[in-house]
Amino acid sequence: MRSPMTTHCYLETEDAYLMLHCVSKKNDVNKDKWIGVGGHFEEGESPEDCLLREVYEETGLTLTSWRFRGIVTFTQEGYGTEYMCMYTADGFTGTMKECDEGILEWVPKKELLSLNLWEGDKIFIKLLLEEAPFFSLKLSYKGDELVEAELDGNNILVL
Amino acid sequence: MRSPMTTHCYLETEDAYLMLHCVSKKNDVNKDKWIGVGGHFEEGESPEDCLLREVYEETGLTLTSWRFRGIVTFTQEGYGTEYMCMYTADGFTGTMKECDEGILEWVPKKELLSLNLWEGDKIFIKLLLEEAPFFSLKLSYKGDELVEAELDGNNILVL
Repeated sequence: MRSPMTTHCYLETEDAYLMLHCVSKKNDVNKDKWIGVGGHFEEGESPEDCLLREVYEETGLTLTSWRFRGIVTFTQEGYGTEYMCMYTADGFTGTMKECDEGILEWVPKKELLSLNLWEGDKIFIKLLLEEAPFFSLKLSYKGDELVEAELDGNNILVL
Repeated sequence: MRSPMTTHCYLETEDAYLMLHCVSKKNDVNKDKWIGVGGHFEEGESPEDCLLREVYEETGLTLTSWRFRGIVTFTQEGYGTEYMCMYTADGFTGTMKECDEGILEWVPKKELLSLNLWEGDKIFIKLLLEEAPFFSLKLSYKGDELVEAELDGNNILVL
């Protein structure tokens, strides 16, 4: 069984985030959306073990500097619960390679919120861009619709 | 199957932590040790959902102010991996009740490290007392022996 724990990382420069445009896989829940890089923990991995492995697998880059920014609890009826450890990383070495899961593209920070994003992703991208302190965000979906958002235990979704 | 995710909380006053002395349960992996309060996530819970429920169940108290301080990855051969969300809490209401799992006792902060603690617990209690920023700590045990400790991905165990 896959771990309910995942990592999700935005590599960043001063002006841009590295985004993955999910156009490659069939039957991808993220089809055509833009996300960060990352994936599920393997047995025995810490958040950093998973972070470094996933970033290397998906980009060919090795992280040298990163920050643990928050945890996102995703719930969706019929899909169980996922706990996503959220990172940004501003130091990396190596040569970027093509990713099996989509197209990697540096997107200017000021254009991020106009991409095709999940509704809840807009919330945590804003928190990251605003330099919010470590956050715990709970996002509940019914299908594609965001129906609940709690930040550090407090409702923040205005429907 | 139980979630690999748990919460662990030290309720605190200016001078003391609320500690649980595990003397009540038979066959308790923590038998006779001193720990914080907490337990495993239930399906769909966020870290804060679990925190508030577990603290209430074990102490009778309702938290009104808390801080998410770090994540601890525990690995032990034969027991799988546990991810512990670590909190301190300095605001709570209600009346403290007896705990099924042991004896609750306020212990002065300066006496904490002389209690009967797991070796790795001493590491994160020190981080908490030193007001370390949000940390990710990986602790690996063989039986009762701590054999690996990594802080934010860097080895910190001197054997």
